[in-house]
Amino acid sequence: MNKSIKTFVASTLAVLVVAYSLDAFAAPPKPEKLIQWRQSAYRVIEWNVARIKASVEGQYNKEEVSKAAHSIAAIANSGLDTLYPAGTEHGKGWRETAVKPELFKDTKRVAELSASFSKEANELTKVAAGGDAAAVKAQLGKLAKTCKACHDDYKESE
Amino acid sequence: MNKSIKTFVASTLAVLVVAYSLDAFAAPPKPEKLIQWRQSAYRVIEWNVARIKASVEGQYNKEEVSKAAHSIAAIANSGLDTLYPAGTEHGKGWRETAVKPELFKDTKRVAELSASFSKEANELTKVAAGGDAAAVKAQLGKLAKTCKACHDDYKESE
Repeated sequence: MNKSIKTFVASTLAVLVVAYSLDAFAAPPKPEKLIQWRQSAYRVIEWNVARIKASVEGQYNKEEVSKAAHSIAAIANSGLDTLYPAGTEHGKGWRETAVKPELFKDTKRVAELSASFSKEANELTKVAAGGDAAAVKAQLGKLAKTCKACHDDYKESE
Repeated sequence: MNKSIKTFVASTLAVLVVAYSLDAFAAPPKPEKLIQWRQSAYRVIEWNVARIKASVEGQYNKEEVSKAAHSIAAIANSGLDTLYPAGTEHGKGWRETAVKPELFKDTKRVAELSASFSKEANELTKVAAGGDAAAVKAQLGKLAKTCKACHDDYKESE
C-alpha cells in the first residue's frame, strides 16, 4: 500500500471505531417513545386481564389463564417505573399521556402501589397454576384493586 | 310478603340472572381492540429489546436484562396468534394494521415462525441468567432474526 491509501484506510477505520462507540452509547429513547411503550404495556395487561375475565366468567381454560397471568406478572415485574423519567410528564405516545403530574412527585407512594401490583400479579400466577376458577376470580379482583388505586390518583379520567 | 312484592322480587331476580348470564358470555373483543392489543404487544417487545441492546452495548445490567428477557418470553409464549382471528385482516387499532393478508392463509408457516420466536425468547431468558453480555448479544441476534423472518413476509413496510 502506498502512503495515501494507508492514511485513507487508517482514517476510515478511525471513523468506524468512533461510529461504533457512539452507537454503543446511543441516545436514550425520546419521551414520546417512552410514553408509547408505557401505554402499550398497560394495553397488554388489559388484554390479559380480559382473557382471564372471559375464562372465569365463561368456559375456564387453565392454560390460557396461566399464560395471561404470566404476561401480566412479567410486565409488572419488568420495571415500568423506568418508563416515567422526568421529562415524560407531557407528550404524545400513541396518544397524549393521561398521567397526572403528582406521579412524578409522590415517588414513595407510587413505589408502594407498584410493589402491590407486582405482588398481586405474582400471586395470580400461583393461583392460576392451581386451576381453581373461583380462586383465580378472587385474585383477579385483588389485582384489579391495585390497578384502580393507581389510576384513581395518578391517571386522568378518559 | 304480599303478592305484588313477591312478583317484584322474582322479576328483579330474573333480570339480574339474565344480566349475569349475558355478562358471563360477553361479546368477544372487537377487531379494533384485538389489533390495538397486538400492536401494543410488539411495542412492549420493542421496549425490552431496546433495553437489552442498550445493556449489551453500554453498561451491562444483569437484572435489567433478565427482567426484559422475561417480558419478551412471556409475551412470546402468551398466544399472540389469538390476536389474529379472521376479521382482523384490516382495521385500525392504535393505527391501521400493517399485517399482510398472507398471514391469515399461511397458518402452518406462521405457526412455525411463532414457535421459533418463542424458542429463541425462552433461550434468551436462560442466557440472561448467565450474565455474559457477549452471549446475550449473540442470543438477541438470533431472536431478532425470528422477528425479521415474520416481518419480511407478513408485515407491510412502514
